[in-house]
Amino acid sequence: MSQKAVVLLSGGLDSTTTLAIAADQGYELYALSFDYGQRHQFELEAAKTLAEKWNVTQHVIIPLNLAAFGGSALTSEIAVPKHRSQEEMNDGIPVTYVPARNTVFLSVAMGWAESLGASDIFIGVNAVDYSGYPDCRPEFIKSFEQLANLATKSGVEGTRTWKIHAPLIQLTKAEIIRTGTKLGVDYGSTHTCYDPDSEGRACGQCDACILRLQGFAEAGLTDTAAYQPK
Amino acid sequence: MSQKAVVLLSGGLDSTTTLAIAADQGYELYALSFDYGQRHQFELEAAKTLAEKWNVTQHVIIPLNLAAFGGSALTSEIAVPKHRSQEEMNDGIPVTYVPARNTVFLSVAMGWAESLGASDIFIGVNAVDYSGYPDCRPEFIKSFEQLANLATKSGVEGTRTWKIHAPLIQLTKAEIIRTGTKLGVDYGSTHTCYDPDSEGRACGQCDACILRLQGFAEAGLTDTAAYQPK
Repeated sequence: MSQKAVVLLSGGLDSTTTLAIAADQGYELYALSFDYGQRHQFELEAAKTLAEKWNVTQHVIIPLNLAAFGGSALTSEIAVPKHRSQEEMNDGIPVTYVPARNTVFLSVAMGWAESLGASDIFIGVNAVDYSGYPDCRPEFIKSFEQLANLATKSGVEGTRTWKIHAPLIQLTKAEIIRTGTKLGVDYGSTHTCYDPDSEGRACGQCDACILRLQGFAEAGLTDTAAYQPK
Repeated sequence: MSQKAVVLLSGGLDSTTTLAIAADQGYELYALSFDYGQRHQFELEAAKTLAEKWNVTQHVIIPLNLAAFGGSALTSEIAVPKHRSQEEMNDGIPVTYVPARNTVFLSVAMGWAESLGASDIFIGVNAVDYSGYPDCRPEFIKSFEQLANLATKSGVEGTRTWKIHAPLIQLTKAEIIRTGTKLGVDYGSTHTCYDPDSEGRACGQCDACILRLQGFAEAGLTDTAAYQPK
């Protein structure tokens, strides 16, 4: 019987690649998504499609309205920045930062994993492109792993040691795309854009789109996702 | 202007005493409760009443259905144990343990606090009576504090140092009740029982009721909460 792992799946490029990596490592997959008051639902639709494609045992979508607290362009009315250079993106913590997001996601994943008798969690954080997010750094992941071993029954009783897998954390976007492509990820089904149109087509101009398109260019591959006409 | 603090408020004896302590320390109060699929809603009703009594600036109730994951007598159909001795209660991790509960609660509190420009969180955990819960221990609280300083913008930028206040952690139930009584807590409004009747009256027989009643007896005070007729 394969070991179970909970994989955080947003429906984006990074989390989908992470799902493929967990599958490749032989884990039985439990995908976890959040409906956290995103401004659009295309991400969640992508997550559903991808969870099916990768034959996850169970896909749970937890409604969790962090938008009630405000404070981020992803969940409130702050404008999504466009046409920024890599230097501008790396200057400080971005406005698209959602307070405590990855901590909340990992905590809920930990609860589910404990109920499942699992102690492996996969998260697609990346410290290269998103250097401004505090909760995408290796020291954050390490600290959460320590917390999990203190916070849970299995950690305290020593029956299992918790492992937070962040396989993309030191990869460039091009390396992520090459890895996923080798594992059979259909990137046309993934959703990345912060500001899609009503049909879900990507804007090609926000930070997330720019990094994605640069990644495909560097990897020498073609992005099959739908973009808005210019 | 007073500093803001987020206080986790379940509507029980411990969290209400914690709210009173935070008020006494001069913080501006933001109360956070969760609707996490409890088997009854009396706790949340108590939380609303108490938040009003203590003049909190804002009280937010976050719906978060951890019951979907199963695994605890507080959220699923496992029977609540009754008439247990202190020794039985302290033997291992109780069935009323909800996986990752305090980690999830603290994570969401951290997100709200960051949005508010706060870095103080109050939680009414207690390591004396509930020695079996991994996430009620001082080492867990310390670990979460370290995590908060790595997970947040304010922690990383060094503009604020996070503090997880757990003022009850080393107190006996009698000491908690004496402290709260001095600060003006009306314990008749708090809800403790794991298994109340349809009118919300406490059973007097579950672990939580037994510890509460012992606490009042030791403190030499009378519990004004409503109990079911014997």
